[in-house]
Amino acid sequence: MIVVMSRVTEEDLQRVVDKLKGYGFDIHISSGVAKTIIGAVGGSKTVDLSNIEMMPGVEKVVPILQPYKLVSREFKQEDTIIKFGDTEIGGNKIAVMAGPCAVESYEQLLAAAKVVKAAGAQFIRGGAFKPRTSPYSFQGLEEEGLKMLKAVREETGLLVVTEAMDPKSAELVAEYADIIQIGARNMQNFFLLKEVAKISKPILLKRGLSATIEEWLMAAEYILAGGNYDVILCERGIRTYETYTRNTLDISAVPAVKMLSHLPVIVDPSHATGKWRLVGPMAKASLVAGADGLMIEVHPKPSEAFSDGAQSLTPQNFHVLMDELRYLANAIGKSL
Amino acid sequence: MIVVMSRVTEEDLQRVVDKLKGYGFDIHISSGVAKTIIGAVGGSKTVDLSNIEMMPGVEKVVPILQPYKLVSREFKQEDTIIKFGDTEIGGNKIAVMAGPCAVESYEQLLAAAKVVKAAGAQFIRGGAFKPRTSPYSFQGLEEEGLKMLKAVREETGLLVVTEAMDPKSAELVAEYADIIQIGARNMQNFFLLKEVAKISKPILLKRGLSATIEEWLMAAEYILAGGNYDVILCERGIRTYETYTRNTLDISAVPAVKMLSHLPVIVDPSHATGKWRLVGPMAKASLVAGADGLMIEVHPKPSEAFSDGAQSLTPQNFHVLMDELRYLANAIGKSL
Amino acid sequence: MIVVMSRVTEEDLQRVVDKLKGYGFDIHISSGVAKTIIGAVGGSKTVDLSNIEMMPGVEKVVPILQPYKLVSREFKQEDTIIKFGDTEIGGNKIAVMAGPCAVESYEQLLAAAKVVKAAGAQFIRGGAFKPRTSPYSFQGLEEEGLKMLKAVREETGLLVVTEAMDPKSAELVAEYADIIQIGARNMQNFFLLKEVAKISKPILLKRGLSATIEEWLMAAEYILAGGNYDVILCERGIRTYETYTRNTLDISAVPAVKMLSHLPVIVDPSHATGKWRLVGPMAKASLVAGADGLMIEVHPKPSEAFSDGAQSLTPQNFHVLMDELRYLANAIGKSL
Amino acid sequence: MIVVMSRVTEEDLQRVVDKLKGYGFDIHISSGVAKTIIGAVGGSKTVDLSNIEMMPGVEKVVPILQPYKLVSREFKQEDTIIKFGDTEIGGNKIAVMAGPCAVESYEQLLAAAKVVKAAGAQFIRGGAFKPRTSPYSFQGLEEEGLKMLKAVREETGLLVVTEAMDPKSAELVAEYADIIQIGARNMQNFFLLKEVAKISKPILLKRGLSATIEEWLMAAEYILAGGNYDVILCERGIRTYETYTRNTLDISAVPAVKMLSHLPVIVDPSHATGKWRLVGPMAKASLVAGADGLMIEVHPKPSEAFSDGAQSLTPQNFHVLMDELRYLANAIGKSL
Repeated sequence: MIVVMSRVTEEDLQRVVDKLKGYGFDIHISSGVAKTIIGAVGGSKTVDLSNIEMMPGVEKVVPILQPYKLVSREFKQEDTIIKFGDTEIGGNKIAVMAGPCAVESYEQLLAAAKVVKAAGAQFIRGGAFKPRTSPYSFQGLEEEGLKMLKAVREETGLLVVTEAMDPKSAELVAEYADIIQIGARNMQNFFLLKEVAKISKPILLKRGLSATIEEWLMAAEYILAGGNYDVILCERGIRTYETYTRNTLDISAVPAVKMLSHLPVIVDPSHATGKWRLVGPMAKASLVAGADGLMIEVHPKPSEAFSDGAQSLTPQNFHVLMDELRYLANAIGKSL
Repeated sequence: MIVVMSRVTEEDLQRVVDKLKGYGFDIHISSGVAKTIIGAVGGSKTVDLSNIEMMPGVEKVVPILQPYKLVSREFKQEDTIIKFGDTEIGGNKIAVMAGPCAVESYEQLLAAAKVVKAAGAQFIRGGAFKPRTSPYSFQGLEEEGLKMLKAVREETGLLVVTEAMDPKSAELVAEYADIIQIGARNMQNFFLLKEVAKISKPILLKRGLSATIEEWLMAAEYILAGGNYDVILCERGIRTYETYTRNTLDISAVPAVKMLSHLPVIVDPSHATGKWRLVGPMAKASLVAGADGLMIEVHPKPSEAFSDGAQSLTPQNFHVLMDELRYLANAIGKSL
Repeated sequence: MIVVMSRVTEEDLQRVVDKLKGYGFDIHISSGVAKTIIGAVGGSKTVDLSNIEMMPGVEKVVPILQPYKLVSREFKQEDTIIKFGDTEIGGNKIAVMAGPCAVESYEQLLAAAKVVKAAGAQFIRGGAFKPRTSPYSFQGLEEEGLKMLKAVREETGLLVVTEAMDPKSAELVAEYADIIQIGARNMQNFFLLKEVAKISKPILLKRGLSATIEEWLMAAEYILAGGNYDVILCERGIRTYETYTRNTLDISAVPAVKMLSHLPVIVDPSHATGKWRLVGPMAKASLVAGADGLMIEVHPKPSEAFSDGAQSLTPQNFHVLMDELRYLANAIGKSL
Repeated sequence: MIVVMSRVTEEDLQRVVDKLKGYGFDIHISSGVAKTIIGAVGGSKTVDLSNIEMMPGVEKVVPILQPYKLVSREFKQEDTIIKFGDTEIGGNKIAVMAGPCAVESYEQLLAAAKVVKAAGAQFIRGGAFKPRTSPYSFQGLEEEGLKMLKAVREETGLLVVTEAMDPKSAELVAEYADIIQIGARNMQNFFLLKEVAKISKPILLKRGLSATIEEWLMAAEYILAGGNYDVILCERGIRTYETYTRNTLDISAVPAVKMLSHLPVIVDPSHATGKWRLVGPMAKASLVAGADGLMIEVHPKPSEAFSDGAQSLTPQNFHVLMDELRYLANAIGKSL
């Protein structure tokens, strides 16, 4: 860590140096006219910087080590590839997870699944537990929904991605799902993260509504540190002042995360934009920016959806988009 | 709700009208050259607006009813006052909750509690379960910490505010605490909200890191809708682009919430600013803006704190601030 | 416009209706139990909504017409294509504007221009007037820099894009430039917009640091309303809480603007990300999202640049990127 | 400055050290296992950090000196007090600038001025040049408006605050105004800043829509560096994701700026909130947070205002607020 002190007295400097040495750091001091810089290397990384920050004379404290370890590229050079039989995420083949926002009925889900399958996607998505802003909105079919997902899985061969919202039901979700999704609102629900860390199913971790890339990677670190190394990150837009789109899709997070971490990254352009007309262009942009996969809302009849109809593609639009994505994937040396 | 349609065909218009009538709405149509406005009144409020939004010809859908009900001023005109023996929150007396960020030891907590008590605050705060960005940071003393809080409560007569982080341990926290805090990261942890709604202890609901006032009130609505009417809202700064302060304290949320809702509102200037020098001015500003209380970090030795030392007041600074707040409260016809 | 009134009295309603009729609107009233909706169609569009908003009983006022006209797709269906001899912007060919952030010397500019030309770009960019946060930073070579740009133009045949920062010097810039750039900080410098509206050179209008899409289009509307129809919009990242990238590139603004407006849109991934490693992926993503062009920083020796070296590509990296972009452009039926 | 390098080679390190020495810095190196820290003290402050940032092996560069000098507390310890005859800004007396958003007519302005004067404010505010989002909105009465301000000044003895929007008309505004306002949209209009730096009238510099505190102080530095030391800073709300208020008033910026700078700071709660009901609480909060003054919109008939009626106080509400502010100022040892 680096400590910058301002117009420092001998005494204040000594106190900080002693404190840093107490944490096991090696100390190097550079003194200028107005500022003194203390370089502290070695030492433990669990020091709370704010304790140094408030010592007399200290102007700022700058960490020099990334706070995450297991998720970092430095820890593991090669890309993590997660296997599901002959499907995989993180390799050369683009994974597509598609389906309705919420599981509404077996008929609806099956209809969606057939569309998804026919268009060439490998995963069906659909929420059985739905995080809703309002307590009066549809909250999901819960275990009934999970059962429908499993039935559709058996009928179509599609793999299932669905959300777990609390530690208690995470185990239940794991029985039915191939991938357990952690939603944006739960990215820092640390009890839930610790719980899914114990489950031997891959976790899809959505970026929080206003999470920095570092906080997102730290949330993933919770899961890896708990023993589950199969984490897929999912960029789904961040909250900004712009109201035209529901969120602002941060596509630059894709190459950024690929540099910082070995984990696969996918993108959800449906929730990010909230407007079906923008889903296609954003899906394509994400693909060429390096995303390992896409999560796309498709509904057999969007205008009758229980939630988020405005961002769902119709079966036909989804078909067209998949063809375009396949073509583009091939153009950049990947497949779909 | 209002539906705005653009260069609409007779057919598209009819389809929307039929759909709205199907939901039980009364329909009024205003036709201009470029736009047609449909006013839909009456009807159910659980219609998902996005389903209308995506019908052909629809440009936008504007809700006209606030999505919350039980928390609203319209539902209950008079201020909610929550009683704790002879202390109360929401009335004329300013509630002050002070103490360390985390419970670190019985000695630390008791030392802090004595300071808090001597300065005239009514509540001791301190986390036994700590939501931490890093899995490697101190996570709290858990039940041991809760026991220390209870012991200090018995020794000093201070009431206890402490955080519950997951549905499973909420019941446990309720056994020890006078007020159960829901942290910013859990504001939309809906399972947790539903769980604390069943507990007969007041809930302090912190505003989420990037929650709108409406989302915050909707989170409170979950708790009231579940049967617990004793909710205290706590503004604690929102995430913005500004990095000088940890968050940006939105003091305007205080009078805004007091207009929209009958629930009491307090402010946490410590977490909001992250800098102890700003805590005093922001505490005073919150008070005159109409806050019903304050939550302030005080640590017997801030530079030895396990977390967030940089935002903690020393005992002496807290004493001075409390005197200033008391004087100011009197000046505006309240007490402390 | 739509006016929503709450628990309204006959008198308050009448006052609002009279006021709206005074503005020439036709009025349609829908009365519900709690709310009354007034649809006001026709009438003048220059009514200040806030005057209605503050009338007794009024809860909110919702505009129904977009505030821009000349820039809108409704006003002009077909894409605007701006011609420069045999080069064009807005058509099938991707325009690339590349070069150093600032013009530093004739040698530096010429070296950059040769790289830009050899890689196949059509425009050289470089600032002669530099908006700098600090008064102590390099402010640009001013007219000397403009002369160098012109000389390089003559030597290489590249077209010149450079920024005008104030109304007084806009005319001067116009003498030397093929496209006059308005920087992000000046997007709402309305005197400058009115001034460049009178000049018969195309204007490249960067999106403001925290401008909404609507505000950006309104700024363009100033230029069109002043008589200059050749406006190129440039997305360059918006300010968010994320600090890993300098700004957050809002690629979804590209298809959004293409739907709302007939004007061409280009993207500047260099200023948006502030990190040269992210420039390539973001350039490619912008291209497939529908951008009509790209603005990319290239410097012969980035580590010796007077400004923004960290986001500049080296000549070699630029060459490689241009090849990838050309290939990708062909793959989506465009050329470069 | 501090340079952090990662897994560095001897060669890369030497290159950075040589470059820093070339800038005149003294160099101190701390080597850890993963990271090497270079402390560079002394040297010139106009080095562009991004040039170091992109050198091989460099992970990040951290500046240690504040980029501003003349505006800093370190440069000048005592508060700057700006005198206007027997009125002053920055001292013990709270300055209040009130009046309509725009000058609409002599009658309107005079009526407002009489209200402002009677309530005890010292300054009349009103825009003759109006920065408007739309080219079709009222743009101000321009020089006619300035003349009305001067006439009202003569009639009432109130001092005049009004905005200059471009370098050309700044001189003109200076002839009529006692304080020249630079609006939020022009905070980084550097030509305008340089121009008003040459004028011997105090400058009121509004914080930009999404300006950091540092950028705001740097904009002030432009004016001081140009020779005009009489700058008043004005916090007016920043752009956030929250839509309930027009902007989010950052009251914490008041004590923050008072620590970092010697310049006076005032607050504009009217533009910040956009809702007249919030103006009073935010004015009071700003006062106790340490603001040296307030800028408040008052209109004789808000619902007939040409702009921003919804945030204007009526004469009666303004009177009541001024009484409350006077009482509160006295309570904290100031006057109004």
